[in-house]
Amino acid sequence: MTSNTIGSPRSLFLQEVEVSGHIIDSLILPKVLDCITALGASFRIKQISIGQARSDPSYALVEVQAESAEKLEELLRTIADHGAISVATEDCRLVPTEVAGAFPEGFYSTTNQQSEIRQDGKWIKVENQEMDCGIVVDAASRKARCLPMTDVEIGQSIVVGHLGVRVHPQQRSTERQQFEFMSSSVSTEKPKGPAIRQVAQELFNTRAAGGQALVVGGPAIVHTGSGGHLCELIRGGYIQKLFAGNALATHDIEQAMFGTSLGVHLDRGNITETGHEHHLRAINRIRREGSIRQAVESQVLTQGIMYECVRHHVDYMLAGSIRDDGPLPEVVTDAIQSQRIMREKLRDVTFCLMIATTLHSIAVGNLLPAWVKVVCVDINPSTVIKLSDRGSFQTAGLITDVEPFLRALVDEVKNLESAPVSDQ
Amino acid sequence: MTSNTIGSPRSLFLQEVEVSGHIIDSLILPKVLDCITALGASFRIKQISIGQARSDPSYALVEVQAESAEKLEELLRTIADHGAISVATEDCRLVPTEVAGAFPEGFYSTTNQQSEIRQDGKWIKVENQEMDCGIVVDAASRKARCLPMTDVEIGQSIVVGHLGVRVHPQQRSTERQQFEFMSSSVSTEKPKGPAIRQVAQELFNTRAAGGQALVVGGPAIVHTGSGGHLCELIRGGYIQKLFAGNALATHDIEQAMFGTSLGVHLDRGNITETGHEHHLRAINRIRREGSIRQAVESQVLTQGIMYECVRHHVDYMLAGSIRDDGPLPEVVTDAIQSQRIMREKLRDVTFCLMIATTLHSIAVGNLLPAWVKVVCVDINPSTVIKLSDRGSFQTAGLITDVEPFLRALVDEVKNLESAPVSDQ
Amino acid sequence: MTSNTIGSPRSLFLQEVEVSGHIIDSLILPKVLDCITALGASFRIKQISIGQARSDPSYALVEVQAESAEKLEELLRTIADHGAISVATEDCRLVPTEVAGAFPEGFYSTTNQQSEIRQDGKWIKVENQEMDCGIVVDAASRKARCLPMTDVEIGQSIVVGHLGVRVHPQQRSTERQQFEFMSSSVSTEKPKGPAIRQVAQELFNTRAAGGQALVVGGPAIVHTGSGGHLCELIRGGYIQKLFAGNALATHDIEQAMFGTSLGVHLDRGNITETGHEHHLRAINRIRREGSIRQAVESQVLTQGIMYECVRHHVDYMLAGSIRDDGPLPEVVTDAIQSQRIMREKLRDVTFCLMIATTLHSIAVGNLLPAWVKVVCVDINPSTVIKLSDRGSFQTAGLITDVEPFLRALVDEVKNLESAPVSDQ
Amino acid sequence: MTSNTIGSPRSLFLQEVEVSGHIIDSLILPKVLDCITALGASFRIKQISIGQARSDPSYALVEVQAESAEKLEELLRTIADHGAISVATEDCRLVPTEVAGAFPEGFYSTTNQQSEIRQDGKWIKVENQEMDCGIVVDAASRKARCLPMTDVEIGQSIVVGHLGVRVHPQQRSTERQQFEFMSSSVSTEKPKGPAIRQVAQELFNTRAAGGQALVVGGPAIVHTGSGGHLCELIRGGYIQKLFAGNALATHDIEQAMFGTSLGVHLDRGNITETGHEHHLRAINRIRREGSIRQAVESQVLTQGIMYECVRHHVDYMLAGSIRDDGPLPEVVTDAIQSQRIMREKLRDVTFCLMIATTLHSIAVGNLLPAWVKVVCVDINPSTVIKLSDRGSFQTAGLITDVEPFLRALVDEVKNLESAPVSDQ
Repeated sequence: MTSNTIGSPRSLFLQEVEVSGHIIDSLILPKVLDCITALGASFRIKQISIGQARSDPSYALVEVQAESAEKLEELLRTIADHGAISVATEDCRLVPTEVAGAFPEGFYSTTNQQSEIRQDGKWIKVENQEMDCGIVVDAASRKARCLPMTDVEIGQSIVVGHLGVRVHPQQRSTERQQFEFMSSSVSTEKPKGPAIRQVAQELFNTRAAGGQALVVGGPAIVHTGSGGHLCELIRGGYIQKLFAGNALATHDIEQAMFGTSLGVHLDRGNITETGHEHHLRAINRIRREGSIRQAVESQVLTQGIMYECVRHHVDYMLAGSIRDDGPLPEVVTDAIQSQRIMREKLRDVTFCLMIATTLHSIAVGNLLPAWVKVVCVDINPSTVIKLSDRGSFQTAGLITDVEPFLRALVDEVKNLESAPVSDQ
Repeated sequence: MTSNTIGSPRSLFLQEVEVSGHIIDSLILPKVLDCITALGASFRIKQISIGQARSDPSYALVEVQAESAEKLEELLRTIADHGAISVATEDCRLVPTEVAGAFPEGFYSTTNQQSEIRQDGKWIKVENQEMDCGIVVDAASRKARCLPMTDVEIGQSIVVGHLGVRVHPQQRSTERQQFEFMSSSVSTEKPKGPAIRQVAQELFNTRAAGGQALVVGGPAIVHTGSGGHLCELIRGGYIQKLFAGNALATHDIEQAMFGTSLGVHLDRGNITETGHEHHLRAINRIRREGSIRQAVESQVLTQGIMYECVRHHVDYMLAGSIRDDGPLPEVVTDAIQSQRIMREKLRDVTFCLMIATTLHSIAVGNLLPAWVKVVCVDINPSTVIKLSDRGSFQTAGLITDVEPFLRALVDEVKNLESAPVSDQ
Repeated sequence: MTSNTIGSPRSLFLQEVEVSGHIIDSLILPKVLDCITALGASFRIKQISIGQARSDPSYALVEVQAESAEKLEELLRTIADHGAISVATEDCRLVPTEVAGAFPEGFYSTTNQQSEIRQDGKWIKVENQEMDCGIVVDAASRKARCLPMTDVEIGQSIVVGHLGVRVHPQQRSTERQQFEFMSSSVSTEKPKGPAIRQVAQELFNTRAAGGQALVVGGPAIVHTGSGGHLCELIRGGYIQKLFAGNALATHDIEQAMFGTSLGVHLDRGNITETGHEHHLRAINRIRREGSIRQAVESQVLTQGIMYECVRHHVDYMLAGSIRDDGPLPEVVTDAIQSQRIMREKLRDVTFCLMIATTLHSIAVGNLLPAWVKVVCVDINPSTVIKLSDRGSFQTAGLITDVEPFLRALVDEVKNLESAPVSDQ
Repeated sequence: MTSNTIGSPRSLFLQEVEVSGHIIDSLILPKVLDCITALGASFRIKQISIGQARSDPSYALVEVQAESAEKLEELLRTIADHGAISVATEDCRLVPTEVAGAFPEGFYSTTNQQSEIRQDGKWIKVENQEMDCGIVVDAASRKARCLPMTDVEIGQSIVVGHLGVRVHPQQRSTERQQFEFMSSSVSTEKPKGPAIRQVAQELFNTRAAGGQALVVGGPAIVHTGSGGHLCELIRGGYIQKLFAGNALATHDIEQAMFGTSLGVHLDRGNITETGHEHHLRAINRIRREGSIRQAVESQVLTQGIMYECVRHHVDYMLAGSIRDDGPLPEVVTDAIQSQRIMREKLRDVTFCLMIATTLHSIAVGNLLPAWVKVVCVDINPSTVIKLSDRGSFQTAGLITDVEPFLRALVDEVKNLESAPVSDQ
């Protein structure tokens, strides 16, 4: 497998790349070297300067050798995603689209890291950074942006290949990290108190700075009897946006109308079988009103998460799925349209708290750039593992139970409100 | 809480109900009595005759007492779902719809058990049995059927209240059950061999009888390297329908085109980071072709699950979700439209095998009547628990790993093929 | 398999059994009938009288038919464990032991349900009820008690076979159950508040009645930063006994001495790698003192769970395991000796709260009679499933995170303390 | 927190350390720098030379600065475990023990990495490397070895502090790794085939090289009906040692005698309740024989895992726990004695396969040096996560179902047997 073909000396297929920044302790250089070896290629470090102190940037010039031109190409594409840039840089290559809804073959596939493309020798920042898109370049305005496959129109200029594209991997900040618990391995046996305090601080800071905090939530928020805690956060002005599905809204409205969630009385907790159809009656009533908003105005809906969203102008978005009953009138049943709306609403989000939903969390994770802070809370480790496989320093997982998490979060936020002002 | 209000003797609110069939060992009578007590009401068994042998049906006449008319009404509605029928039966009450997409208040909400309604003193079977629907009655044809909320049109006659509706709960068959492992509690520590043999027998019998076997599958079938096993079942004629999402089809096509699934080489199993964008390139190619079917014809797609589906006329349906990349051209992105298509395709399904997908399994579970046999396979107990909460004798859960399950299933099916014909 | 051998009519092997009590709604009769059919035998109900109201007991006389004498014997043994007693009752048969540490062949193997044996026509209650033991009868005192296999001495009289033994299955009380959440299926999506309130009430009542509450705890209590909550309960007089392993005590003492648990600072929550050997230094210091008790007296140990146990006379027991470091001096390293000590200490326990430990929970569950109330709390459903497979109405599982559970439990207990006295 | 105390310039507390080897791609240097920053200290890289190619070793000289002497000491201790050695090296300090069963305060606490101590200017290799021990030095023989706390005798010379101790962290081999799946994150969605092939290859190579393969197994091997597969591996000469508990042996013997495991018939898989006491009868019979070995000789035990172990001279060890019934005669009930026996038997183990047991896996993991290859197989991710937190390159986790894993493993081993000899 590693044998050289006679007459085809490996040295023919080599290229110099450079990496810079906090390449040692943000693990950028180790990752690049690991990729090279994992793909069966080899490397020589031709030059390296390590910053004398933690705040100083470092630099490495690495010569990569592969056994074929194709291997080298594949390798360069892979390490480019980790920030290794070919020294012999050229402008990026643009190919016009000839089919609607599809890219040209060989299109550059984006990551969620900040990227730039090179045009006429100048590096241009890519807008609307999002993973798994193409990059479209507007010749007139000299602007580049990420473009989802479904939005491709005929005649657009799409970046093809990896040349002339560079990526700036997210680096650990030189100060201590906001979320110290982030980099930890997934564990149910870690203390939760400090992590919850950090989330509270983040919500507090976001409100103070006029930022946009997004909650992505699943129906377990209601089933576990935690709806009231979320309502408090909304009334306190800590939540600006809510992404959820039909289920969260339905069970919240069922709870507001009947005091049950999936037929279970939240204040009694018994498994009385009565009223398993309550959620259906709740949906039916809202459909008769025409919308949740209308139901609030006509006082058919007088409490709960959705009620508070309407009253406190939380910008909510309900995305449909094939397991929905009903659904409620505002639910966007088309998945592509839902993605477009979420994409738009995510533009100004600065902090994202995902609670007890795998589907919506991954959907939002797919759309977010790497630099938006995300905390994902779930009692099931597999959801958190899937999310943190995204692999950014900015995603933190917390394996805990929803109800006590939200209860403690409200307590911590109140502690911050009543604390004397500090310059922390 | 249980105190009597003076002057309001509880005895005023009472009603006689009857239950019949295998009411002891199918747990019908115990469940009914449990519901009554759980709701704070009480009962008197006025008459009971227990079948002398297991095959003989039994009968019980039970007087129910509640402390208010509302409680009694709620209770009767609840136990009606378990097969308890009011003795004083009347015709069902019909109310015309006056809003499109919504039922009248107080509509009868269906279960997945076979139901009948009473019109002019006669019991009429409800067609298209499905849970969480209403019942629409056509005056002219004297036919009744389940109607999803979204499909309501103005002027339809909808059953309101529980009077004049009766339910026939699924009973354990008198012979030994097809799936003996069904009634077992969820456990990862049970022997899997016998259960897999029973699933193989079911597929074998279904094919022999010209039935329709449906596979509902998640992308882990491909990630775990099990696609080939499913292909064998398809080529063997054991699968008539496939419901999946964009992910299963995408990773299957990625695997067919690049040999990777989410960038992982299935035959090597290493975590080479190259090619995480392969799935995107696979989608893009199919979109350029226009459809999976077209890609098979033009030999852009030459192997894999979707390829075999096209070649062997498996009736597939790909339902979209908000976490989809792409998606592939055939994916139905609207959730309501997906439900309508699945509902239609499910009409003649006789056996359903759900593999490694929570979303699609629950979606299909919601649409199936209680008497269709379902086996749900997942490595994660929580999916199986959610499904078996459906609570029918016909749903069996199997907690195991997808790859070895499918590998063993193929082996067992082949054993059956080569076995001498028996009358088992 | 079900074919009759010619000349061996099945009717030859039959026996009448009777069941009484709340046989319908405690599921006793359905279970008995299910066992009969599951074993391939058949039955005829010869007589049945169902209590008119819920509080009235019922009675059934059932004729059991099996195809061989062995099958019949096996069947009678099985249904005897569910309370079905042969009508033709005789005295139990006693066989003397001839090997130390082992029972005679065919010994009656106990359940955790209250049992009686028949001697000289009289029913004698079995003392020290415990599952998986034998029953030893003392001829002189006419007393019977459960005897673990390891404690068998030569010459003891042991009950052999199932004749002359009867079992009283635990029945649902006629009042509403103390733990309404008990009978519910395992789910992470249920509201936790009501369940926690019920546990608090149970601790409160136990203290008021001078009962003995036992906590069986794992090290996650300390890792998750919940030690302080348990300390509060101890100081409040709510815990009389503690069973744990070396790990809980070690990490508690590590936390008391160094502020870390497994090297993690509980108040900071960061994953500082320093001090992973703190737990070893903590053990070492206690070993140098000679015992935990001595370390408290000499003020080497001045806070934490073990400290509070010593100060508040909580009767603690630390059982060793093969994964222990150290261990601490008081740890009982022999498993058989540990079981003997636990057995002794469990005699007067009236309420048992198991927190985040599979090993110790199952060990204690094995030793407890069915009528002691047990609540098992764990974030991992599999522990709770294993425990509730014990199958008594008295065992309740709660899937939640330890820290917030204990935090909320302390809150609820305080609410009860400050509440006006009621007769609830 | 980071403010400097006036008059106490931070520069006073500094030290130079050096790291060498594959410090970039084995992540040694990044880890050391990370520790320094995480503890609030800072660093300057004074000299660095990176190997030109992957096979060349690298070297770095790092100056560490801390704000107090204690911080510096703690820091040096921490990074020493990752291979950072103080430049100003002295001989290690020895303190005699004055209490049996306890080390002197400040003892050096070992890791599972190869370590050396410095005596009279020479580096001496530490024998019996094991984590969480002390190091005892024999003055006469000039030998050093790891010593468990319980084995301390009065008057031994124990290493105190970290000076004069150096650690050689396990490095990634320069060739491709034996277990490529090792470094992957925990996931249930990975292809299992390649990983199973690698385990088979490892067993095959171990047998060929006359090595010692150890299986550490839980009772699920029997419950899931996989006992026969393990028997095949034993008969094939692939297993030299078996560590298990009372449960595996008991259920194996129950299966051999009654055809059930915990009362479940493995070939039928139904949940017949009969015979839940079979395991107790199995133990009782072996206890009557005196030992498993004797039961094989007297033909009371004629098949199963334990039978094959006796016949094929597999060196087995059964360790007791507090949840054991019985136990079987050979079970070592004292935890400390069990550890001593395991420690002895582990000396020559070259490959370790852990299957479906958390307790025994962690116990063995605690005793093994970092360079022994370990594969841990479990359907429950949490066991695998706990094991891989050990953090050596040599530990690989595989989340899959036991039965199909062992079935496939037997298949793969047979493929290797019948394969033509290659030099792979």
